Amino acid sequence: MRKTDILIVGGSAAGATAAITAKRHYPDKEVTLVRQEKQVPIPCGIPYIFGTLGDASRNIIPDTLLENNGITLKIAKVTAITPDRLTIETTAGSIACERLVLATGSVPGRLPVPGFDLDGTFPILKDIPHLVNLQKRLQQATHVVVIGCGFIGIEFADEIHKMGGKKVSVLEIAPYCLSLAYDREFCEEMESAVRARGIDIRTNAKVREIKGQQQVEAVVLADGTEIPADVVIFGVGALPNVEIAKAAGLQLGPTGAIAVDRAMRTSREHVFACGDCAEKISFFTGCPSPLRLASIATLEARIAGANLYSVRREHDGTVGVWSTAIGNLAMGTAGLTETAARQNGYDCVATAVEGPNRHPGGMPGGAPTKLKLVFEKNTGVLLGGQVRGNESSGEMINIISACIQKRMGAEDLATFQMGTHPALTASPISYHLVNAAEMALAGMRNK
Amino acid sequence: MRKTDILIVGGSAAGATAAITAKRHYPDKEVTLVRQEKQVPIPCGIPYIFGTLGDASRNIIPDTLLENNGITLKIAKVTAITPDRLTIETTAGSIACERLVLATGSVPGRLPVPGFDLDGTFPILKDIPHLVNLQKRLQQATHVVVIGCGFIGIEFADEIHKMGGKKVSVLEIAPYCLSLAYDREFCEEMESAVRARGIDIRTNAKVREIKGQQQVEAVVLADGTEIPADVVIFGVGALPNVEIAKAAGLQLGPTGAIAVDRAMRTSREHVFACGDCAEKISFFTGCPSPLRLASIATLEARIAGANLYSVRREHDGTVGVWSTAIGNLAMGTAGLTETAARQNGYDCVATAVEGPNRHPGGMPGGAPTKLKLVFEKNTGVLLGGQVRGNESSGEMINIISACIQKRMGAEDLATFQMGTHPALTASPISYHLVNAAEMALAGMRNK
Repeated sequence: MRKTDILIVGGSAAGATAAITAKRHYPDKEVTLVRQEKQVPIPCGIPYIFGTLGDASRNIIPDTLLENNGITLKIAKVTAITPDRLTIETTAGSIACERLVLATGSVPGRLPVPGFDLDGTFPILKDIPHLVNLQKRLQQATHVVVIGCGFIGIEFADEIHKMGGKKVSVLEIAPYCLSLAYDREFCEEMESAVRARGIDIRTNAKVREIKGQQQVEAVVLADGTEIPADVVIFGVGALPNVEIAKAAGLQLGPTGAIAVDRAMRTSREHVFACGDCAEKISFFTGCPSPLRLASIATLEARIAGANLYSVRREHDGTVGVWSTAIGNLAMGTAGLTETAARQNGYDCVATAVEGPNRHPGGMPGGAPTKLKLVFEKNTGVLLGGQVRGNESSGEMINIISACIQKRMGAEDLATFQMGTHPALTASPISYHLVNAAEMALAGMRNK
Repeated sequence: MRKTDILIVGGSAAGATAAITAKRHYPDKEVTLVRQEKQVPIPCGIPYIFGTLGDASRNIIPDTLLENNGITLKIAKVTAITPDRLTIETTAGSIACERLVLATGSVPGRLPVPGFDLDGTFPILKDIPHLVNLQKRLQQATHVVVIGCGFIGIEFADEIHKMGGKKVSVLEIAPYCLSLAYDREFCEEMESAVRARGIDIRTNAKVREIKGQQQVEAVVLADGTEIPADVVIFGVGALPNVEIAKAAGLQLGPTGAIAVDRAMRTSREHVFACGDCAEKISFFTGCPSPLRLASIATLEARIAGANLYSVRREHDGTVGVWSTAIGNLAMGTAGLTETAARQNGYDCVATAVEGPNRHPGGMPGGAPTKLKLVFEKNTGVLLGGQVRGNESSGEMINIISACIQKRMGAEDLATFQMGTHPALTASPISYHLVNAAEMALAGMRNK
């Protein structure tokens, strides 16, 4: 039987990061990563294969990342794990280890409606041959329907629309797209922007059936509307891939993912889990969090990888930070939306500031930028933020994330020391973050 | 004698922000702002008048900012203040107040070399008629020399070069441009970028004389080199404008600016000062800081404005956060450079990470991005950071600033919860901030 010190199962964002982190923290240990895919797509880059990159081969996590860090890569399917003996079975033989990290990711959700498995229906698999096949089918398609209007659904729709010559529809069962990520006013702006690009967004749209003989022909809604479809894509979320963990008797958590503590340890000694396959708790409530994002996966991998031989760091819980971009419109969210904060029982003050992200506003490259902050009313602690603007929104939301992580309050934000530049940011007089905080403080004084 | 509750002297970034903040915190008080300029230029936008905006009138702080906040504006020159009676004398009569805020800004430095005041030499004044005159002279000029290669000098040189048909030289007495803001490797990159745009940068260049009869003809260096010049611009820093404060007997600080405490109170009761005219101390050492930036001015104005009738917030000291952009190259700095940290007696670990700010790297709009972090070696506390990339660098540096302000350590940064997006940021596996922190931790473990 082959032996290694640290064995990582899974080669996507979590697996690769766990391997790199393990090697950084325990440089004398041999780290082996086992995965079944020859090539691993960058998960968040998948939609961009179709309209922007043009080829799945341009969206690969490079194996040099592993090689340069001295990690041994083994391509094989893992069929079983035996936690008590710290061994795994693979299609290429058994491997024993001192520490085992499960980073088995997720499997795409499908809708349990009639016709869900007709030819021409596609889940979103993080698998290059599958994506190459999907791209071929899309090239021949005239009518494409994306089911699910979260950020992946929107990005798929927009990228497919960019391919040209297609009627693209996106269906959302909720009253707004992206409603888990943003408050309604932001969702509506994104909907308008996507519609303005020629994409058919339908909200409150419940799918009754996918119609066709062998090949998909149309998507039928609960109200009887038929939308013609040559290809149907399911962007309806992901479920933790816990098959081998469950078979091995590892404890699962309330959402069905592998149960882990704050150090990312599973119920079995020396076995860790991270990424989409692992349970998450909210930074705010400590309750289970359904978020599955590559950035969360890499954080968990950095915790697991550091803790393999002694606990060096613990998880504060998932803040939930992510962003979306359609054309020049970018949006970011961190922490709780106002809606989510109120649902969770917080008494909030929410303020929004809108203005250019350059100064003067006529400087090139700018965009009207809106920033909303949500504070707990009595303590002034920042609970969340949302940004809408152009590309700098992607990093603006990370400023807000830093503030949330350190539980900064409105007063901290009102006296924030930001750098500003005419060609890069808003003016220091009207810097969004600071002004939104000052407005919130005024709201708290008047409570 | 006219009376008001809160009286602000000065209408640039500090004055306007102090007025708005005062009104926000004390909405029942009458706030009056007195300034001598009919129109106030946006200070950091001044270089961009020449190449990008094309007209000084496109770089104005709008008076609607004051009007919309219910602030009374009075255009007059303040000739004297009497702190004991809380009155001021202006060219349009006397005004009495309950609280007085001095935001008198700075005056540009000039070099005490022969010929410094010849016709064709220009300090950088925050004054529209002066800037209009400078623009006219530049339009007729063929040879332009900018003395001082800080960020303002570089931005002026680049913007004047954009006007076309000119030979532009920038002179720096130090061995590198921008050496107060960045470590040497960043300075050298900026120098190369500026040179590649066709601008003549000369470092280690000490000016001996400005030559000419009435009109400037050339700048003569200490080594005898003569550089022809139709226009000479002094970008050699600014000195606090404390004339009326000094005449009124207000205490000055070690750098000659108005002495203030952490609440921005001067030595006289009910008199506050903020912005370039006020003394600053470093967030790190508590020693006087020579930095004068609009963003620092607005922070101080937010502190002064909030504290007028009771102390609501205090100054933690100046972190020092700013950025620079030349074409598509942008750089940002926050806190201490490695050089400055070592000069201040810190034992440091500095790490740098370079990679694309998109993922995959082939996504459009990206740029190779370099991030350097400086940590105190024993505690792991973040002391500073520098970024080089494209426009998102302007907000990336503010993430680092947030981390510095809350005295976050390498461990906090290694477990930072960032949002990532293919079209907006680096990949979560190789996010610069987090990887630089992990590398620093490895360095600290091996100490």
